[in-house]
Amino acid sequence: MFKIKKKLAILGSTGSIGTQALSIVKARPEMFEVFMLSANSNCELLYKQAKVFKPKHIVVNTPEAYIFLKKNVGKKTTVSMGLDNLCQIVQLSEIDLVLSAIVGSAGLRPTVSAILANKNIALANKESLVVAGELVMRLVKENTVDFLPVDSEHSAIFQCLVGEDYKSVDRLILTASGGPFLNLPEQQFNNISVSDALKHPNWKMGNKITIDSATLMNKGFELIEAYWLFGLSEKSIDIVIHPESIIHSLVEFVDGSTKAQLGMPDMTTPILYALGFPKRIKYPFKPLNLIDCSKLTFFQPDKLRFPHLQLAYDCLRLGGSSTCSLNAANEIAVNAFLNKKISFVNMFKLIEMSLEKSIFVNDPSLEDYLHVDSETRKITSELISKI
Amino acid sequence: MFKIKKKLAILGSTGSIGTQALSIVKARPEMFEVFMLSANSNCELLYKQAKVFKPKHIVVNTPEAYIFLKKNVGKKTTVSMGLDNLCQIVQLSEIDLVLSAIVGSAGLRPTVSAILANKNIALANKESLVVAGELVMRLVKENTVDFLPVDSEHSAIFQCLVGEDYKSVDRLILTASGGPFLNLPEQQFNNISVSDALKHPNWKMGNKITIDSATLMNKGFELIEAYWLFGLSEKSIDIVIHPESIIHSLVEFVDGSTKAQLGMPDMTTPILYALGFPKRIKYPFKPLNLIDCSKLTFFQPDKLRFPHLQLAYDCLRLGGSSTCSLNAANEIAVNAFLNKKISFVNMFKLIEMSLEKSIFVNDPSLEDYLHVDSETRKITSELISKI
Repeated sequence: MFKIKKKLAILGSTGSIGTQALSIVKARPEMFEVFMLSANSNCELLYKQAKVFKPKHIVVNTPEAYIFLKKNVGKKTTVSMGLDNLCQIVQLSEIDLVLSAIVGSAGLRPTVSAILANKNIALANKESLVVAGELVMRLVKENTVDFLPVDSEHSAIFQCLVGEDYKSVDRLILTASGGPFLNLPEQQFNNISVSDALKHPNWKMGNKITIDSATLMNKGFELIEAYWLFGLSEKSIDIVIHPESIIHSLVEFVDGSTKAQLGMPDMTTPILYALGFPKRIKYPFKPLNLIDCSKLTFFQPDKLRFPHLQLAYDCLRLGGSSTCSLNAANEIAVNAFLNKKISFVNMFKLIEMSLEKSIFVNDPSLEDYLHVDSETRKITSELISKI
Repeated sequence: MFKIKKKLAILGSTGSIGTQALSIVKARPEMFEVFMLSANSNCELLYKQAKVFKPKHIVVNTPEAYIFLKKNVGKKTTVSMGLDNLCQIVQLSEIDLVLSAIVGSAGLRPTVSAILANKNIALANKESLVVAGELVMRLVKENTVDFLPVDSEHSAIFQCLVGEDYKSVDRLILTASGGPFLNLPEQQFNNISVSDALKHPNWKMGNKITIDSATLMNKGFELIEAYWLFGLSEKSIDIVIHPESIIHSLVEFVDGSTKAQLGMPDMTTPILYALGFPKRIKYPFKPLNLIDCSKLTFFQPDKLRFPHLQLAYDCLRLGGSSTCSLNAANEIAVNAFLNKKISFVNMFKLIEMSLEKSIFVNDPSLEDYLHVDSETRKITSELISKI
């Protein structure tokens, strides 16, 4: 039987999501073909990936990586550098689906660029929606693209909504593992080390998101992401701590019925679902054994020990460029913590101080978002020494 | 806006499902109209229902009920008696949806009759599928009717499958509360009284199904029902004890993703879903509060204390008229227990003895099923005194 392969552009191919996506492509060569890979600077891994997947295009972000790859990959692969090239190449007509898996607000411009060229998007870069949800969702509608969440919670909701009328949704319930400090007493938060914070109890992920999970900032971002993806008011989106990470999220309908998506905590399923949509791809998996799980538990999030969560609700209510500032300040704060410049608890203080000083734009354009983003980064960076 | 009301035929309107369906109709008069009501003999309640819902037809099963209703209901309602009339009236062209909520194998003939007249079916009478699943599902396909499960477990699976390709299903997981004797030691099973067995921990249901829940025969029947409804092998249908009855059942897909439907244990949701399908009807409900649930637990069913379950698997594997015999023997056994003629544990013995003696027909017709049903009833009734 004649089958058409999906041609993929993978933005952030050396990261956690990118490498897992490539494992799927490798296992299902009859379904997928890699047209383009991009990464920031990890040229050794990118070189290995290029050898295996033979993309037509590679885009990197540093001169060192550019020179190395230009020298080493075969002539059938074009190597380019920088954001402008990336934004052009994701628009090439050959591409069917763009996996947007760059970390942070750096993912916004190429994602917007791909949407404008009518590419279907598998979105792992939640920051695109945190930073510029209003703009991105307007473009998604105007360009009628499939906009497929890769975040496990949003993939769960999206899967529960297949075949359903979005108007019959009453409430979304995002589950949260609670991270490594779920049961840590408040007075011990001062002693949290970087390696403590990088030990997530359930999920194996990149460093940035692992820290965001430890502060619950990640859940706050997911609230904002869900708000834009599914068009419900923030009052209709609840967050429930579910330490076992088996129920990935739930949808409550107007008739009192609730649907949920479950599974072992493994990003393969949401990536697989987004890449294969609207088809489910047969794939080896560890079956969910409820009896082994033994029990599933649920708790209210503690906003006192995890104040980041309230910030997300507040910025979402403020609207405009507020969540863009929140994201920028958080990126700088997480980076400062990872580099041991500030303590775990001071990430929150730094963000709070930065938000007080940051500029506010109502109804922002893409340029406004990018401006607010870079200004907030500057403001936050300057504040680090004052903490 | 112009709206067309669904015209309903409610078979078994005085039972637990029938009365709950009528509460929904009463609350949503802009959506539903009652065209026909039928009941066995509860003429007082049927009379009250007729006064409120003004059906065009009422069908009863006893001369007393017939005379009483004929005398008391207004002239705009036609009163009829007996199964043949019931089978004719469910075929009337005005009817859009038949809610088949008769208890036991008595529901088979009118359900088949409605399918043959291309009526969409909301199926609460699981015995139709236990007795004659092969025949019923063939007719459903031939007559392209919507065949909508009302059982909470099957409604859960059906809801999880909306918008999904049935071919991408890998496994179904039916949950079971475990009934009132989940934790009762085996040696105390001899002392179980009728009133003990009628105390279901979570679900408020009719007497027959409540006893079937206490023996887990109900779960065995649901296994058979799921087998026919969703077309999976019995090896791909698992049963998990979940005492909180919050997750109503689950579907595992070929990509490792699992979907579930959840809610407070209340039959309103599945009835509402089947009546409104493909739309969800806005309806007041008690929201599922996972934090109040505190924990959800899961266990393997104990086939030693609950041997009925294995009987269901065995009869399903045997095929032919085996599950028809199982159902008939069980109906007689439950009745004998409810009338205090046999003990709780002797229900199983009676069914086992009956199955050894009952006739077997391969590839049975409707007449064969009806014949096996009545023969097995005779055999089982005669065996009661020998236990």
